[in-house]
Amino acid sequence: MCQLLGMNCNTPTDIIFSFEGFAKRGGVTDHHSDGWGIAFFEGRAVRLLIDHKSAVDSPIAQLIKTYPIKSLNVIAHIRKATQGDVNLENSHPFMREMWGQNWVFAHNGNLVDFAPSLTGGFNSIGTTDSEAAFCLMMQQLRSAFPAASALCPPAPQAIHAALAKIVPAIAAFGTFNFCLSNGQAMWAHCSTQLYYIVREYPFSTAHLVDTDVAIDFTEHAGRDDRVAVIATQPLTDNEVWHKMCGSELIRFHAGAPQTHSLLAAGQN
Amino acid sequence: MCQLLGMNCNTPTDIIFSFEGFAKRGGVTDHHSDGWGIAFFEGRAVRLLIDHKSAVDSPIAQLIKTYPIKSLNVIAHIRKATQGDVNLENSHPFMREMWGQNWVFAHNGNLVDFAPSLTGGFNSIGTTDSEAAFCLMMQQLRSAFPAASALCPPAPQAIHAALAKIVPAIAAFGTFNFCLSNGQAMWAHCSTQLYYIVREYPFSTAHLVDTDVAIDFTEHAGRDDRVAVIATQPLTDNEVWHKMCGSELIRFHAGAPQTHSLLAAGQN
Repeated sequence: MCQLLGMNCNTPTDIIFSFEGFAKRGGVTDHHSDGWGIAFFEGRAVRLLIDHKSAVDSPIAQLIKTYPIKSLNVIAHIRKATQGDVNLENSHPFMREMWGQNWVFAHNGNLVDFAPSLTGGFNSIGTTDSEAAFCLMMQQLRSAFPAASALCPPAPQAIHAALAKIVPAIAAFGTFNFCLSNGQAMWAHCSTQLYYIVREYPFSTAHLVDTDVAIDFTEHAGRDDRVAVIATQPLTDNEVWHKMCGSELIRFHAGAPQTHSLLAAGQN
Repeated sequence: MCQLLGMNCNTPTDIIFSFEGFAKRGGVTDHHSDGWGIAFFEGRAVRLLIDHKSAVDSPIAQLIKTYPIKSLNVIAHIRKATQGDVNLENSHPFMREMWGQNWVFAHNGNLVDFAPSLTGGFNSIGTTDSEAAFCLMMQQLRSAFPAASALCPPAPQAIHAALAKIVPAIAAFGTFNFCLSNGQAMWAHCSTQLYYIVREYPFSTAHLVDTDVAIDFTEHAGRDDRVAVIATQPLTDNEVWHKMCGSELIRFHAGAPQTHSLLAAGQN
């Protein structure tokens, strides 16, 4: 199983602490060593770093641990290959442009016999079920807003409502835990396993599960800062993480869940 | 003026030597310190690294100098901002997906009063003339091949012929030196200034213009290796670089120019 990590904040925040523990799952505390990747939204741009080496061995992962990139939305992924070879084009997160926005997606799970009809606007470059699902979601979102444009993109609430209709039919093919962001909001969908935590005032000390590192957020965070962290498994062992329900879709904005939806079952 | 660097090879090759001198132009031997970027094709994937810091100060540039990423096609760019703020979304190279291929583009020059009509398939994320020109080229290429798909993309020769029709109308807005690649071929277009060199057997020693570094390619290259390097200005001072003509479009493949076209003048 792959490992997902998402972060959504109300002020640009670095992910060094969470990534420190998360990266250990790429070959040390877990066996996900078939590549990894991380996408940082910075303004309207995305800094996307992918590698087919394990996160533990990767010099790019080493760079991230020492170079504090501050971002409102981050998605990271460590891969355990289920479909598709271990190579760079099959490494998550995936990225496409729509409505003048970067869209970034990473998936945990496995979609069985999933071969969507892609009509040309968004095509897979690699061979994973994950990228095909992302392309289908992009295609169906574009279709859902025929009047939208780079000058007038849909509001995040409207996108959430459209996703709530699109996601169940894909989730019906298997396990479809994912994080998705357009830089304005972060969507997390749980099929089987996804947790989140909101850190806000009053802050405390957090201690990682995967390595013996702790951070005292009272020394690093401002009083108004708020950060939501989403992960396949809790990253810390002394905080309460919320377990998402099966078929739950949450829209995060400004470091907190804004819309919760329990999706209807889809038909394969 | 920005600085362009392209590399097209017949066997995966690292760009450490050329990048060593090129990166010096981002703040040492030239004043292009408004960001930089580099895209490496690896298989069907692209590793895209961009930074709005100068190439001389950037820790990511430092990583590239020490981490030999081998690639058949590389495009790099150092920015001197003419249009658009200095930020990450305005940093070249730009990337989009079409026909299941990554397309990468970087521009040197300035297009004046250029505001193309983009119909939705490809939109600018930042505010540069360069990204708008890239989106228009992608849009017009897709229109030129209505039957093309990810399963059946156009041949590089056909793409070259289509570009020869598309480029002049954009070049009519100003200076349009560029490098473009879909991972199968590299196109270089010269409005005013672009050079290239082909290195092949028998190899010799090359010495950089921008820093006192030399490399003896006889020690590093195999007998059948062939590499074309494209740059705004020659990177070495002891080799003969070919100066491209104004309005010349060249398709490079397997480390050598394959098709040369002198384009007709376009109308603004």
